[in-house]
Parts: sequence; C-alpha cells; structure tokens
Amino acid sequence: MPSVFERYRVEIDAELRSVLNGRRFPLYDLMKYHLGWMDERGHLQYSSGGKALRPTLCLLACEAAGGDRWRTLPAAAAIELVHNFSLIHDDIQDNDRERHHRPTVWRLWGKPQAINAGSAMRVLGSLLLLALRRRRVPGPKVLAAQRLLDENCLAMIEGQYLDISYENRLDIKAADYLDMIERKTAALIGCSAEMGVMLGGGNRVAVCGFRKFGRNLGMAFQIRDDILGIWGDEKLTGKPAGNDIRRRKKSFPVVYALGKAEGKRQKALTDIYSKRAIDETDLQTVLRTMESLKVRDYAQGVARQYGQAAMAGITDLDLEPQCRKDLGELAHFLVERDY
Amino acid sequence: MPSVFERYRVEIDAELRSVLNGRRFPLYDLMKYHLGWMDERGHLQYSSGGKALRPTLCLLACEAAGGDRWRTLPAAAAIELVHNFSLIHDDIQDNDRERHHRPTVWRLWGKPQAINAGSAMRVLGSLLLLALRRRRVPGPKVLAAQRLLDENCLAMIEGQYLDISYENRLDIKAADYLDMIERKTAALIGCSAEMGVMLGGGNRVAVCGFRKFGRNLGMAFQIRDDILGIWGDEKLTGKPAGNDIRRRKKSFPVVYALGKAEGKRQKALTDIYSKRAIDETDLQTVLRTMESLKVRDYAQGVARQYGQAAMAGITDLDLEPQCRKDLGELAHFLVERDY
Repeated sequence: MPSVFERYRVEIDAELRSVLNGRRFPLYDLMKYHLGWMDERGHLQYSSGGKALRPTLCLLACEAAGGDRWRTLPAAAAIELVHNFSLIHDDIQDNDRERHHRPTVWRLWGKPQAINAGSAMRVLGSLLLLALRRRRVPGPKVLAAQRLLDENCLAMIEGQYLDISYENRLDIKAADYLDMIERKTAALIGCSAEMGVMLGGGNRVAVCGFRKFGRNLGMAFQIRDDILGIWGDEKLTGKPAGNDIRRRKKSFPVVYALGKAEGKRQKALTDIYSKRAIDETDLQTVLRTMESLKVRDYAQGVARQYGQAAMAGITDLDLEPQCRKDLGELAHFLVERDY
Repeated sequence: MPSVFERYRVEIDAELRSVLNGRRFPLYDLMKYHLGWMDERGHLQYSSGGKALRPTLCLLACEAAGGDRWRTLPAAAAIELVHNFSLIHDDIQDNDRERHHRPTVWRLWGKPQAINAGSAMRVLGSLLLLALRRRRVPGPKVLAAQRLLDENCLAMIEGQYLDISYENRLDIKAADYLDMIERKTAALIGCSAEMGVMLGGGNRVAVCGFRKFGRNLGMAFQIRDDILGIWGDEKLTGKPAGNDIRRRKKSFPVVYALGKAEGKRQKALTDIYSKRAIDETDLQTVLRTMESLKVRDYAQGVARQYGQAAMAGITDLDLEPQCRKDLGELAHFLVERDY
C-alpha cells in the first residue's frame, strides 16, 4: 500500500474519535463498534480501520494545492463519516451479516437501531463540517463545503437506489451500470478530492481538475472492486471468491458478460441470473463463460482507462511535486490492488 | 383548527414542491408519494398534507419577532423535510403498514428503498437550509441554522433509539419516558420555534424563550398524542382506538399505569406487557385498570402543565400582539385537540 495511506492515518483517526468521544449516549456505541473501536461487549479494541481512502485523498488534494491540511481535517473526517453511514445502511439493505469478518451492526443490534446508527452518523458528519469555522475557514467556504458534501451524498443515495433496482433486472447495459457507480461510488470519491483542493485554496481550474480526477478514480476503484468481488483472494479481500456472483450483484463483469454472450452461452447466463439462488454448479458455469469471453481482462482494461483519465484531470495543474507523485501512486494502487 | 394553520399552508407547500420538483430521478417519487402528492401509480394527487405544525410554528415565531417570513420559509420547509425523513424511517422500524389510511412507503417499494427515500429526504432538508443564503440571510446565521437543525435532528434520532430500546422493558419510569419524548418529539418542535425567532431577528432572550416555548409545547403535543393513541376516535385520528396498547408502546398512560398500579392490578398489567401479543381481552383489562387509576385525567393534566410552561416561556417577551394571540391558540389547540 502506498505510504500516503500511513501519512495521515493518525490524524484522521484522532479527528473521528474527537467527534464520537464527545457524545455520551448508547447509540454512539453502535458507531464505535462499526468503526472497529469496540468489540461486541463494549470493550475497547484497537483497530487501524480500513484504508480511509476518502479522507486520505481529501488531505492529499489539499496539500497538493499548497493548503494546510490541519484546516481541512474536519472535512476529511466528515466524508469518512458519510461513507460509513452508507456502509451501515448498505449492510441492512443487502442483508449482509458480516463486514471484515465481524458481524454487521444490524446483526448485533437489529435493523431498526442500525438504521438509527447510520442516520445519526450522517448528521455527525454534517456537524463536523461546521467545525471548519473554528479552524478559521471562511464562512462562505464552509457553506460551499456543506453544499458539496450534501449534493454528493444525495448522488450516493441515488446510486444505491439504482443498485437495488437493478437486482431483479437482466436488461442492465454497461451504460446503466456506469451511471449507477458514478453516483454510488464515484460521487463521494470525487467529492473528497474536490473538497480537499477547494479548502486547500486551489483555483477553479484546480477544483475542476480534482473533481475529474476523483470521479474517474472512483470509477476505476469500483470496477477493480467488482473484479476482486469475483476473482479476488478471500485471504486478502475478506470476501469469499465468487461472492458477488452468488449474490447476483449486477457488477461490471456480469453486466459485460450478459451483454457479450451469444446463443447457448447467453441463455445459460440469463437462466442462472433469473434463478432465485445460485448454486456451486451455476457459479462454475458463470466463471467458465466469463473466462471464454475474457471478461476479466476487459474489465481490468476499463479500470485502467479510468485510472488514466483520472491522471489526465490533473496533468496540467501546478501541484506540489511530491503530492503529484503520491497521487499517481494512489491511482496506480487503486487500479491494480489485490485487497 | 386555529386559522394560523391555514395562513402559511400554501407557501409551505410551494416551498416543499420547489425542492422536489427540481429533482428528476425515480427516488424522489417515493418522497412525493409519502407527502401525498402522488398515488401509488404515480398519478398526481391533491393533498393538503397534514397540519404542518413545525413549519407553521417556525413562520409564526419569525413573525412574532417582527421578522420577514419569506426569508425564513426555506428553513421552515427544511424542518418539515427532516420530520418526514423520520416518519419514513419510523414506519420501517415499527413495521407500520399504513399512515393516514395509505400504505407506507416501505409497503410499496420495500424497506431497502424506503431507507434510501428517508435518508435522501434528510439531505434535501440540509440543502434547502443553504437556500437561506439566496434570501439574503447572512452567512453566519445560515451556519447557526445548520447547527441548530443538525443538533436537534441528532436528538430526535436519539429519542427514536430510546423509544425502540424501551419496547421490551417493563421498568420504564416517567422520567425515562419524558427524557425519550424530549428528544424524539420536543427537540424538533423546539427547533422550529427557535429557528423562526432566530432568523426573524429576535435577540438572545427571545431565542431562549421560544426554545422553551417550543420544547414544552412538544412535550404537551406528544402526551396528548399518547392519549389519542389510546382513547382517540378512529374517525378523527386515523388510528384505531387502543392501537398503542395493542402495539405495546411505552406511551405516557402506560408508563404511568405500570408505575401506579399495585397488587393484583400491577401483576395483571406486567403479565400483559410481558406477552408477545396483546389480544382483545388484554386490551379491555388494560383499559379498565387505567380507568380505575384515572390515568387519562392525570395524563391530560400533565399535558396542560406543559402547555402552561410553554406559554410562560414567552410571557415576558416583546411580541407582535396578533402573533402572541396565535401562539396561545396554537398551544391550546395542541393540548386539547381530538385529531
């Protein structure tokens, strides 16, 4: 993993803890559990959390524009809270029982309380943005940050709406899929980059460039995620290989295969995806079909294209040289990662 | 119903419609349905909506302080959106199939999509607050409004958390109940009054007075709601009489009766509230016990006390005389209403 993920980890973690530790009420324990700070019995637990991609990208974009990352930190942490709000609700909506080898929040506290935990986390994110004012970020910029986060959060929920509405459909085209992930995943990653450069003092051209960078990176990230959801190594990803196929997720390889297959192969695929449950034989059929259609290589090629489009967004910008290098490493890692 | 509910209705409705009609995406249809603007098949429907208590109170408080209500209108509508976000999620959490004689959102679109509709409505409320800037409300006031709404929204979710956590408990005291409704109901009603007077240009004393007014009114409102939930007329309330007992809700009359009953009566009550389901015989037993303990009169007395405490909050303030009269009528109506 590129060193940039280590650079900001402690600061991001401290900022998130400062928000939650200031709230004394049992509802916040659900959030602390979700973030890995507590085990099921309420005992403190050390966890470095996940990659924290979004806040890392936000702070890196801020520094790339020559900004002071201390002033941007509340916004970076706010985005991470919004991301985690979506994870808590996604687990309820998808009926997922585990996340990173731990029971999901709803499995332990029930769906009604997990809905509350997610919603409250979203509000905490919004309140954290207001803390920018205390770091001497001018009022109009705080309002702009608020609008940016809200609009992209709305896009993210729209994406989740589309994802669920695709579940029982077989007519999803690549364009539908790309529209869905642009909202569900790319909007918030784009927001992270845009937020960082905006608060870091970048000009309009830089803000547009980083939005483009973040959105394209988000597309690449999701397509690579979809590849790992089928061919990933369980030991590294934490998810069983082929998992997305068993769950009948309309991920990129599936959408591409459904569109590309012809004749008997197509019938076999649509038959399997019309079933209520997918068994081991079906899984092998789908995997064989994908292999013969070279789906994996195609999908990886598309992910790489988005990675290149991301870099193109910031090529002409005047950035801190070390940060530009870090942004490149980050993009490369996200496109080629195994976990 | 006091005429003040009619006075602002058209403006509030127009403001809400302006937000939702600007968004073209199927997710927003779920919100339009919830608000009564569409039927299940997507056909336009005329509905005046409910009482719109919160935005009405917000605008009345604004005018009482001598403010221009046009500038406050986005905030009033934002609070109504936050309230409706909570209703959509509450219906999911309580498994309620109907609201105002119509199927709830989750019954028509499923719980996963209803979660999305509620969450997105909350974000729309936040975005609408930012529109205050376009009505020349100064930036620092917009940020203060944002914080006020977020903090009270958080309190509301905490109240919902408590309400659910009380479901399977028999040891709930009156103080626990009052703590719960102060968060779940009174916080957002208090926020409505406080928001109105703050944006209307009231000074610190007026802001505190209206917060006190709104919170106490919220307490009175919820206790009256609990009374109607047991003894209300289905034709007027839209809910079957005794409904809250069948659902084993820890409403004020129940909490009071569980604490007040002694000996055999107490055993009968706790036995019934320990059951998985409450049948018609149980319902009659509970109602008889409540009658002999004069629960209804006691609860109504408490509601009236909160109504008086509400009025005391604004007694010494310098207000527009007509508005003071309207506030009194509003409080009286909420405490004595039959629907």
